[in-house]
Amino acid sequence: MQNKTNFRDVFYISDGTAITAETLAHAVLGQFSLDIKQTTLPFVESIERAKQVKNLINQSNEKYGVQPLVFYSVVVPEIKQIIEQADALFYDVLKVLVEPLERDLAMKATPQLQRSHSINKDSASYHDRIAAIEYTLAHDDGVSLNHLEQADIILLGVSRCGKTPTSLYLAMQFGLRAVNYPFIADDMSALKLPKAIEPYRFKTFGLTIDIERLVAIRNERFADSEYASLEQCQDELHKVEAMFRREAIPYLNTSSLSVEEISTRLLSMSGLKRNMC
Amino acid sequence: MQNKTNFRDVFYISDGTAITAETLAHAVLGQFSLDIKQTTLPFVESIERAKQVKNLINQSNEKYGVQPLVFYSVVVPEIKQIIEQADALFYDVLKVLVEPLERDLAMKATPQLQRSHSINKDSASYHDRIAAIEYTLAHDDGVSLNHLEQADIILLGVSRCGKTPTSLYLAMQFGLRAVNYPFIADDMSALKLPKAIEPYRFKTFGLTIDIERLVAIRNERFADSEYASLEQCQDELHKVEAMFRREAIPYLNTSSLSVEEISTRLLSMSGLKRNMC
Repeated sequence: MQNKTNFRDVFYISDGTAITAETLAHAVLGQFSLDIKQTTLPFVESIERAKQVKNLINQSNEKYGVQPLVFYSVVVPEIKQIIEQADALFYDVLKVLVEPLERDLAMKATPQLQRSHSINKDSASYHDRIAAIEYTLAHDDGVSLNHLEQADIILLGVSRCGKTPTSLYLAMQFGLRAVNYPFIADDMSALKLPKAIEPYRFKTFGLTIDIERLVAIRNERFADSEYASLEQCQDELHKVEAMFRREAIPYLNTSSLSVEEISTRLLSMSGLKRNMC
Repeated sequence: MQNKTNFRDVFYISDGTAITAETLAHAVLGQFSLDIKQTTLPFVESIERAKQVKNLINQSNEKYGVQPLVFYSVVVPEIKQIIEQADALFYDVLKVLVEPLERDLAMKATPQLQRSHSINKDSASYHDRIAAIEYTLAHDDGVSLNHLEQADIILLGVSRCGKTPTSLYLAMQFGLRAVNYPFIADDMSALKLPKAIEPYRFKTFGLTIDIERLVAIRNERFADSEYASLEQCQDELHKVEAMFRREAIPYLNTSSLSVEEISTRLLSMSGLKRNMC
């Protein structure tokens, strides 16, 4: 699979952040058995920089003796033209969809510089997103249970089941205000929803995890502790999951899911809307 | 621009998270003068769900009297087929690039279920990313200056110039361990790098911001405080920027940049590699 003939040097190029080109190319390249080297060149905004980029691509071509793959999205025609003079295989990540849309809608597209990740800072949605990150940080790990009326979602679960990364992803990606609250060993004798959360139980969502994974993760943190013991993990998971069922709190096992998958499944299950920024 | 003839109902559909379809469609739709309504339908993994999705699309078509736009990425052929029976305009967000790549490389693609945001949890890169989020949280806002040897980057700047969201984005998106340290009013009389940071000055990067924006942001937090006063903001920015120059610390003005732009420009300026997950 990793033989020499399948090697390709890959460039992600944009006059913006290049995040769209990268994300998409990643998904596409994942379907090919290639041995790749990757370089991201964002903010190619001047003729001079475009010429440097062209040279970089050509140098790679000479060095490896094989045409590099260029995934790009460049708005300014003069800059685009220069880059396209390089000896490479080119994939314009937006054009491939813009063109069929233009035909289907009988409408001309207006290319927008750095459109996708450039945000009017005074816009309500960008402001909301930054506020969501702040709110989420202030409500991480049970630190505060104030202002729960502003929460979009309240995540519950045992320590180290994935609450914090999920909360931050929900805030960062979807502009949602996420609270997360851990149930700890001391809670286990009479497990119930904290009083402050009771009135907002309709916002609660549970996360759980397989016992073996929890033991492994906790051992990384505090090796051979009671906290990381099989008995303790088993007891906590058993009681917390029983509470989720008793209280009819929807919940999700995070063991084999990435942060993106946990977040999107959670949105899907809870019916929460994504605040797209 | 927002007239009725330009209205379209838009669906983002996937048997994965639908994040790739959404990201890309957003960038593409931003180039058209359309008045859109958006629905994301992730994890369409069963025949039954596919039929529901087909019905949803057809219902929208009947309700609005215009073909919905469907941006989708579905691997399982049976599920794909059912969805494509709906009366809509279809855009397969990966296929449009996979096909030309197959031709150019003379190689068949192997469609991968939920490839782009599904991560083998035992993989080093996913583990690194979660560890980066934890490290970054533990080093937010000057809370800890321990273990700086593990930091990929140390962000410096006045309070409320964008350090925290940028740090979290760098961790979440690029798997980088970011420390951020605020210079506060008390530091101003003899501004210098904290002793703990000195040995790692090669990792430092400054953020700054326009005075008017800083005044506005601080006033939102503590209205009419000295902290939010023009004089105080001016003094802090003046002294901190002078220090960046004196100490030859590269820095960036965040005023008109989104978190994505700050992060990617910073990577570009600092030469840091993205740890793609």
